[in-house]
Amino acid sequence: MSIVLGPHQYGKAENRIVRVYRDTARHEIHDVNVSTALRGAFDAAHLVGDQSAVLPTDTQKQTAYSYAKEKGLTSIESYGLVLGTHFVDDVEPVSGARIEIEEYAWERAVVDGVEHDHAFVRKGQEVRTAAITVEGKGAEQKTWVIGGFKELVLLKTTGSEFKDFLENSYTLLQPTTDRIMATSLVAKWRFFEPAEGWESIDWEATYAGIKQTMVSVFASLHSLALQQTLYEMGKAVLEAYPFLAEIRMAAPNKHHFLYDLSPFGVANDNEVFNADDRPYGLIQASVLRDDAPPAGPAWDIAGGFA
Amino acid sequence: MSIVLGPHQYGKAENRIVRVYRDTARHEIHDVNVSTALRGAFDAAHLVGDQSAVLPTDTQKQTAYSYAKEKGLTSIESYGLVLGTHFVDDVEPVSGARIEIEEYAWERAVVDGVEHDHAFVRKGQEVRTAAITVEGKGAEQKTWVIGGFKELVLLKTTGSEFKDFLENSYTLLQPTTDRIMATSLVAKWRFFEPAEGWESIDWEATYAGIKQTMVSVFASLHSLALQQTLYEMGKAVLEAYPFLAEIRMAAPNKHHFLYDLSPFGVANDNEVFNADDRPYGLIQASVLRDDAPPAGPAWDIAGGFA
Amino acid sequence: MSIVLGPHQYGKAENRIVRVYRDTARHEIHDVNVSTALRGAFDAAHLVGDQSAVLPTDTQKQTAYSYAKEKGLTSIESYGLVLGTHFVDDVEPVSGARIEIEEYAWERAVVDGVEHDHAFVRKGQEVRTAAITVEGKGAEQKTWVIGGFKELVLLKTTGSEFKDFLENSYTLLQPTTDRIMATSLVAKWRFFEPAEGWESIDWEATYAGIKQTMVSVFASLHSLALQQTLYEMGKAVLEAYPFLAEIRMAAPNKHHFLYDLSPFGVANDNEVFNADDRPYGLIQASVLRDDAPPAGPAWDIAGGFA
Amino acid sequence: MSIVLGPHQYGKAENRIVRVYRDTARHEIHDVNVSTALRGAFDAAHLVGDQSAVLPTDTQKQTAYSYAKEKGLTSIESYGLVLGTHFVDDVEPVSGARIEIEEYAWERAVVDGVEHDHAFVRKGQEVRTAAITVEGKGAEQKTWVIGGFKELVLLKTTGSEFKDFLENSYTLLQPTTDRIMATSLVAKWRFFEPAEGWESIDWEATYAGIKQTMVSVFASLHSLALQQTLYEMGKAVLEAYPFLAEIRMAAPNKHHFLYDLSPFGVANDNEVFNADDRPYGLIQASVLRDDAPPAGPAWDIAGGFA
Repeated sequence: MSIVLGPHQYGKAENRIVRVYRDTARHEIHDVNVSTALRGAFDAAHLVGDQSAVLPTDTQKQTAYSYAKEKGLTSIESYGLVLGTHFVDDVEPVSGARIEIEEYAWERAVVDGVEHDHAFVRKGQEVRTAAITVEGKGAEQKTWVIGGFKELVLLKTTGSEFKDFLENSYTLLQPTTDRIMATSLVAKWRFFEPAEGWESIDWEATYAGIKQTMVSVFASLHSLALQQTLYEMGKAVLEAYPFLAEIRMAAPNKHHFLYDLSPFGVANDNEVFNADDRPYGLIQASVLRDDAPPAGPAWDIAGGFA
Repeated sequence: MSIVLGPHQYGKAENRIVRVYRDTARHEIHDVNVSTALRGAFDAAHLVGDQSAVLPTDTQKQTAYSYAKEKGLTSIESYGLVLGTHFVDDVEPVSGARIEIEEYAWERAVVDGVEHDHAFVRKGQEVRTAAITVEGKGAEQKTWVIGGFKELVLLKTTGSEFKDFLENSYTLLQPTTDRIMATSLVAKWRFFEPAEGWESIDWEATYAGIKQTMVSVFASLHSLALQQTLYEMGKAVLEAYPFLAEIRMAAPNKHHFLYDLSPFGVANDNEVFNADDRPYGLIQASVLRDDAPPAGPAWDIAGGFA
Repeated sequence: MSIVLGPHQYGKAENRIVRVYRDTARHEIHDVNVSTALRGAFDAAHLVGDQSAVLPTDTQKQTAYSYAKEKGLTSIESYGLVLGTHFVDDVEPVSGARIEIEEYAWERAVVDGVEHDHAFVRKGQEVRTAAITVEGKGAEQKTWVIGGFKELVLLKTTGSEFKDFLENSYTLLQPTTDRIMATSLVAKWRFFEPAEGWESIDWEATYAGIKQTMVSVFASLHSLALQQTLYEMGKAVLEAYPFLAEIRMAAPNKHHFLYDLSPFGVANDNEVFNADDRPYGLIQASVLRDDAPPAGPAWDIAGGFA
Repeated sequence: MSIVLGPHQYGKAENRIVRVYRDTARHEIHDVNVSTALRGAFDAAHLVGDQSAVLPTDTQKQTAYSYAKEKGLTSIESYGLVLGTHFVDDVEPVSGARIEIEEYAWERAVVDGVEHDHAFVRKGQEVRTAAITVEGKGAEQKTWVIGGFKELVLLKTTGSEFKDFLENSYTLLQPTTDRIMATSLVAKWRFFEPAEGWESIDWEATYAGIKQTMVSVFASLHSLALQQTLYEMGKAVLEAYPFLAEIRMAAPNKHHFLYDLSPFGVANDNEVFNADDRPYGLIQASVLRDDAPPAGPAWDIAGGFA
């Protein structure tokens, strides 16, 4: 019996890179938060403090900033692929890399009804996310791309039921056929590489389309349960985008409790609610294409590190 | 020499009230965070624990929820006036009330190009705010209304300079004629009551107009300093809305530092920036109408209580 | 009638300075967050963008870091006095300065029962605060010092009542003679300068003593209301420290609601509670020495800028 | 090819339960945040909105609160085992449960040098964590227990080097033989069930011992890299506690950059630092007992759901 080093990785987290394109008077902006992590032959760093195989996290940071100019930063998925592949291909001890990126959207300021060329207002809605994993060198190399978003807050004021559930001696909840349903949605979708290669995917159009699809299903579906809504949202996305292998969603049920105004002789026909903070229901579900290639390390090397 | 009770108030903070109007199929939603505070003859509660003059904070909460139905909740300024006046008029020991409200905007989900009747996406941009103060009973009663917003994040990628500043032996900063200027703006404007009364103000149109005015000035003005931009924003608002007495603004200078890529032989012509967190410049400025009525307790009873 | 510039100030917020004393093997650490703000003849910066009177916020930052070495950083109150006085005395256009500081406490790591010389664990309890205001040049100069803390979380599991309160038609709350009382206390105390000068105050001993006094009163007093507890805490502090003019406190009533287990046939004799987030009662109170010198600008230039 | 439901779970997150033991005058308090999640035959809820197999999250909440009294809540690991086993054993459609718990420590208020019976100050240091997984019914049932903490902030002012690292064309970092090393440590350790059963483990003594062991190693080890420090911390824990299978750690390298005071003619011999926020190095490492039983679902059902 002995004690050994287990899975490990290291990198530079939360590089807040802002990339401006200003080749014309109409500037473009990409505002991102990039985290890099490298995996490989770093045992000596742990066992005896030998750093000779360790590319400093500061170097990873410099690379991330410089690549925003050298290679460009338009879609976060393609930028992540280029950055991750660089670390694996060009740094000898590195066998794998994971690049995680958040993007914050900006919209143009509007002056006298016209979009401004170089002034922006942060959109403030959901945060777009990506996670790119690169494993292996040369012909053995594999890449995985996950797109997604978080903090997309959705709510419907009717069209949501919850009834006919399982009961036991701890059940106090009353069934309802009309409630507010609200969530702050996290969604992550795993692409697989088309035969034509990653470059054949239009990352921007795909992102916009997935968001629109999910919002539409949320709005349109008469919901019997948040689980049902999530499943239908995920199914619609996979049906629309054949190069997606699966989608994973986490949806806190942001409870809006009908406020009891009867002690004051005031009727409340689903008009006044208390938006409660904690606790909250939390529904996690995934939808898969059953012939999709395996996820491999796409989701993470291992749990428990957060 | 003796030790005495000083200024004090108490209330229920952060009632998360959601008010839905559903009289037609096209629902409306108002999502607010209401804090109440009462001032008055509460000395005995402090000095000897006698609660006989103290209306419990729970009662304040019940009232805030019930009033959302009884009196309605459309504009936060008018709702706050009604609620604050109630506490002063109807609760004998209460001599003053302050109601602070935040509102979170929602936009309609769009399905097949059409706005949905009852599904919403949280807009996520700025948070609208209001602070209503009511002092005195009967004919002596006075009211103050402050509107505002916070977390409006603005950025321009050019059209901002900072040069010719004062220097001393601790000055290292280099002047610049082209930098990113960005801020997360807080603005609070003090209304004064028109001769026609508070009800003559269109709170919704005023709010939208002030925001639009400020964004337009931020975008259009070639800026020599954030101070100048703030002053011009405030001045434009006061010029447009004659029933505003003053506007106060707090603007963190969210620094975007040009990233030095020269060690890598890469040019960086204002294209790659590091968005830094701390420290940050913080500019606070106000613009006044010089014949405006005095602020009285509009801004707060006293500092130091936050 | 015209539109004019009102109160304004500017500075560098949240300089995260860590000062290590390592003259002996037993190191000392001071971990602070310093914000500077300057007031003075900055009208031209606002009105026409002229920066010639503006000492950049970057220069303020450099000064704050350098003074941590040049002048030393042991007590935050004395460091703030030195830094604030410098800006007013040495920068011509500056007529006033406000320095706000937070300090995060560390305790020594303990190894084999012995305190370590240079390894520390962040204590994690309350954050100590100070706000120093300097106004005027030369013989006219005045200084104000406020000490304090925030996030001191206190709780007692019994010895707290709330009953015999005022009722109206919105009152549902039931009186109680035994409840949990809990708060996350903010306290700020205003010093006045002793005849012997600021340097005669032992800032460290005073801070420790005030905290201990407040915790002792919270624990010992059988409480009829949070108001009463706050008043007695403040009174005890002023009695113990004759160089304090006043103390201001903000105390959220962190509600712990007795959980109803009766539907499950389970007794709950004040044993199981739900710690609720929002809404919360908020009690703000101050205690004064009635012959204290006036507060002047000690608390702030003006509200509404946060 | 078809689209199918993938992994899923649901539950009630962040039940803020406070359990007081008051059988004697000297009260005890346990302040926890409990999240439950159930796995099982919930396909119909997703596919057609049929809730007949779904025990509502509200019921899970009621159970969590009631069990705090019925079964007791002293150690979070044993409470989690009881709660998780209940859901799997007593709710027919449930095949697996995961209970995640945070605990916030309180220390007794001290009055006149004596610990108070029923007044407490929140300790504020690290948050203790646990994650219990129960899978399978009857004789097939397996349980996994993970203990841990987060937000333990450690710092040493010397005794830390970083040099002789790998360099490439993006490397600007200079080696150092004396730097501040600081982190906000997350650690999670996986227990395996001793032959004598879970009840043979003294959860409280084990937790205290692990924390003390990790702090001691952090303090004592002259560090050549954060990786080395983490490995030695984990190794020491596994050596001391034979019923631990592995430990996983995530350690942000909270950078403290030496502040350059040379422009001001001021020496800075590792005395004044800037504590930077972002980006930060992030080191994740695990240490294993090589004959430990497999982790199974102990760490999570699947990534990507956060």
